[in-house]
Amino acid sequence: MENQDYKQKALKLHEDYKGKIEVNTKYPIEKKDDLALLYTPGVAEPCKKIAENKDDIYRYTAKGNLVAVVTDGSAVLGLGNIGASAGMPVMEGKSILFKHFGNVDAFPILIDSQDTDTIVETIKHIAPTFGGINLEDISAPRCFEIERRLKEELDIPVFHDDQHGTAIVVTAGVINALKLVDKSPEDVKLVINGCGAAGVAILKMLLNLGIKDALILDRKGIIHRDNPDNNWIKKEIAEITNKDNITGDLSVAIKDADIFVGVSSAGALTKDMVKTMAEKSIIFALANPVPEIFPDEAKEAGAYIVGTGRSDFPNQVNNVLCFPGLFRGALDARATKITEEMKMAAAHAIADIVGDKLSVDFVIPEAMDMEVPKRVAEAVRKTAKD
Amino acid sequence: MENQDYKQKALKLHEDYKGKIEVNTKYPIEKKDDLALLYTPGVAEPCKKIAENKDDIYRYTAKGNLVAVVTDGSAVLGLGNIGASAGMPVMEGKSILFKHFGNVDAFPILIDSQDTDTIVETIKHIAPTFGGINLEDISAPRCFEIERRLKEELDIPVFHDDQHGTAIVVTAGVINALKLVDKSPEDVKLVINGCGAAGVAILKMLLNLGIKDALILDRKGIIHRDNPDNNWIKKEIAEITNKDNITGDLSVAIKDADIFVGVSSAGALTKDMVKTMAEKSIIFALANPVPEIFPDEAKEAGAYIVGTGRSDFPNQVNNVLCFPGLFRGALDARATKITEEMKMAAAHAIADIVGDKLSVDFVIPEAMDMEVPKRVAEAVRKTAKD
Repeated sequence: MENQDYKQKALKLHEDYKGKIEVNTKYPIEKKDDLALLYTPGVAEPCKKIAENKDDIYRYTAKGNLVAVVTDGSAVLGLGNIGASAGMPVMEGKSILFKHFGNVDAFPILIDSQDTDTIVETIKHIAPTFGGINLEDISAPRCFEIERRLKEELDIPVFHDDQHGTAIVVTAGVINALKLVDKSPEDVKLVINGCGAAGVAILKMLLNLGIKDALILDRKGIIHRDNPDNNWIKKEIAEITNKDNITGDLSVAIKDADIFVGVSSAGALTKDMVKTMAEKSIIFALANPVPEIFPDEAKEAGAYIVGTGRSDFPNQVNNVLCFPGLFRGALDARATKITEEMKMAAAHAIADIVGDKLSVDFVIPEAMDMEVPKRVAEAVRKTAKD
Repeated sequence: MENQDYKQKALKLHEDYKGKIEVNTKYPIEKKDDLALLYTPGVAEPCKKIAENKDDIYRYTAKGNLVAVVTDGSAVLGLGNIGASAGMPVMEGKSILFKHFGNVDAFPILIDSQDTDTIVETIKHIAPTFGGINLEDISAPRCFEIERRLKEELDIPVFHDDQHGTAIVVTAGVINALKLVDKSPEDVKLVINGCGAAGVAILKMLLNLGIKDALILDRKGIIHRDNPDNNWIKKEIAEITNKDNITGDLSVAIKDADIFVGVSSAGALTKDMVKTMAEKSIIFALANPVPEIFPDEAKEAGAYIVGTGRSDFPNQVNNVLCFPGLFRGALDARATKITEEMKMAAAHAIADIVGDKLSVDFVIPEAMDMEVPKRVAEAVRKTAKD
């Protein structure tokens, strides 16, 4: 589709359908008796059961399959802080992807506050309706605290997709890319450009995968321990990266790197920088819609494997590969948390689907492949049960 | 259906279907291009429009048709304060009735607090998702304050169905019953037994209809001005009822009454009491499942028209006659409030549907009559536009 064309089409489609979600009944209402069973007086029976045993809410209601897609609108797509209401089309989009790929009933919750305490309290107060909470498009560093507090206080899975969904899919891509270049995580140098929600989560997950040598950069350069401007999350990160405590910009950091992950901005990685990377370099340039470097340029400069966030190039890092299956598995297992083990199981499941077809242009499966959510769900469910 | 039979059936049905609601996509996702239109990058277009003009959320999203069915579980059906989670089956039931009768997409919100401020704040913070708020099963007198504050602070319709839904259907029944007995509202004496959410709302609406002479009773007897135990709502009510400021129980109040409305408890109205009522008396005995008096007993004692809350007797006062059409009309009109005029228009619409078929056993239309929500919606929409 041409640029203007798809924009007009997208707008018209949203207007024609008045959004994308609807709430339906699972059981058709046809006769008066149906009312007596689904509503008064019959409905009193499941109510009484739940009043006696709170856990029966999973048995008699939709709670176990309901996920809230919650945003404060502070970091919507590449659009920034446009507010919760303007984020509604994204939350509805996410909700229908949950349904299509994971058979999860997801519902948008727009919160009209960007205060951390208010967001945490509001979500806590409405949590009884839901079997899980998917946080969406909440800016860093508030997103880290909001997620941590909710995980501590709620007994249902809480997952910030912009962090962990992206991290899981990137990790799947890295697992497969390292196989192709025959390097092991312990031996590679990783550079992440961008220190927001996604960057921090990708870093932590790739360290969990076994990578030891990592640098991460914000707009001002490499995160290092002596920077008095470091906020709490950057302080934490400085402790687990940059062992030589070097300073400098991306052109300094990128030298001899085996893997570059960009969650930053259009054009941030130049061909000259790529030329200084290690042999058989791996690049995930995820800025959207214009990546840090386009695949053809990266290849010209010597990159071996290139992925982006776009569907029109190979190796698309698309969160839809993860969140529907991950929640499906977590809900099926009645998991109370999404653990590191469950996330890593999801990454391996995504990587494994590629199988024999593994090649430089196919380290990540196709977004529309319905086999992906099935296999992710199965892996997450099994890990949660263990 | 036999008693035990329907209870088991209701339970099994709730378990088999795992509740009653699901969230679906209005637009089928079939190919990769669909993702580009419904999600990234296409979804950015409606987001940008809403960021520019907040009102465009009604144009490009589902908000305009989404209603939150909110409870704190403090007064669920006849079950009392069983908590929000145990109320989930009722909220789901309400949601599917909204869809079936009004094509409104309603979604349950269970709030894990019974503190008035917390409830108001929580609903305010999640309101951006919704085109309307239906409060449900919240106990009096907190429900009055919660509704008042939300009406003041939100720019979408807020409606406590237990109050106004019941009041509107009772008013429809009274309008038709008075036609049959050829009395006018100004001349009749009204007695309401029960001074909770429904009782207070019924009283106010019937006073609006033109009734001048009314008594309302709580468990301790007739509400009167000199009672030092009166809370703020009972003080308010004492000022607009009981002009002679009498005291006593229902046997005192009921003497010479033309209309009795019970929202109290099983068996509260005896045959002896009915015998003391005025000629051609009208009784709405709404305690559920066992009414204040059964229709056959009431008739034996001389009552002329009897309605209950049950579907197995004539003249069922069922809120489903009101809320789906009322919200349909309010949403279609983009009303910011449910006004007294809109409620009265709904009552007249419900009464008018009975038409030529008006009889002592048919003063209220059938719950399953799909003509009702259509006509209510039309009346409410027109009144809102005026």
